[in-house]
Amino acid sequence: MSRSPGRKQENHKISRELFVLTYGALVAQLCKDYEKDEDVNACLDKMGYSIGIRLIDDFLARSAVKKCRSYSETADVIAQVAFKMYLGVTPSVSCSNTTGNEFSLILDKNPLVDFVEELPAERASLCYCNLLCGVIRGALEMVHLAAEVSFLQDRLKGDAVTEIGITFLRKPEDRKHRR
Amino acid sequence: MSRSPGRKQENHKISRELFVLTYGALVAQLCKDYEKDEDVNACLDKMGYSIGIRLIDDFLARSAVKKCRSYSETADVIAQVAFKMYLGVTPSVSCSNTTGNEFSLILDKNPLVDFVEELPAERASLCYCNLLCGVIRGALEMVHLAAEVSFLQDRLKGDAVTEIGITFLRKPEDRKHRR
Repeated sequence: MSRSPGRKQENHKISRELFVLTYGALVAQLCKDYEKDEDVNACLDKMGYSIGIRLIDDFLARSAVKKCRSYSETADVIAQVAFKMYLGVTPSVSCSNTTGNEFSLILDKNPLVDFVEELPAERASLCYCNLLCGVIRGALEMVHLAAEVSFLQDRLKGDAVTEIGITFLRKPEDRKHRR
Repeated sequence: MSRSPGRKQENHKISRELFVLTYGALVAQLCKDYEKDEDVNACLDKMGYSIGIRLIDDFLARSAVKKCRSYSETADVIAQVAFKMYLGVTPSVSCSNTTGNEFSLILDKNPLVDFVEELPAERASLCYCNLLCGVIRGALEMVHLAAEVSFLQDRLKGDAVTEIGITFLRKPEDRKHRR
């Protein structure tokens, strides 16, 4: 107990392969635990949510991101800062509707599936990376942004890209969102 | 499918917090699944083993580590290259016996428990990080080194440091080990 190296002295950077394989072990365990894909997906989302509400402090402390002024800016920060920081990739972002509250994060390459060849036939409805949706949802909630987050496309299921949809839920009484 | 970014173009470095929290979710799930700590420990070790036998290729490809000529050198590589690469920390290494096949990796700080305050009273025998032992064992086996790997001390259990013991198992007919 004599040494207590502060956070700043540490190296937070790691290679992601151990993470990717550990995530695979988690999904495999849940597939053992739950017969239905929907239950696995829900569990991953719930776990992700719990992670997101804890991860946000780390993110805000280390990213030095300023308060976002629009949903669009928030989506950009998720893609360009958060994904880069925690997964080492930067999805492209597009706004999917005219009211400006629906966004897509498009991943040409999803590092979380690096070691996954394809989903087994009996797991066709599995959203393998659903943890990420929960993480985004949980983190956003902690900065007072309610959102629905889900996979719209998935290369694991034969789509050309992997696409995560984020819909910010506007409240009528609170049109200006806070971070 | 038009773009296929090669491995070299990618950034493999990530912040470890998402990994640490995901690992916590995995352990929590296993604690739901298994009543006995021993079963959770065995499951983590087994999962780690499966990860280790896959991770070794990534490690050898990216570390550019040369063939080790002694157990001592192998232990140093695990601590100084592998731990650094995948967990962002460098344990100190000591040899624990005169025959030179038992080593300890000592972690003043274990990043995997960053978000864990203490083990619940009913989980006193849980080896929270037992996955790491399995990873080391699996990876070593793939370079033809049989070893027993286990936690000897754990700060989560009140010890002053976290200590992982590695015992290389010599075969009488094969005294010189190969990588």
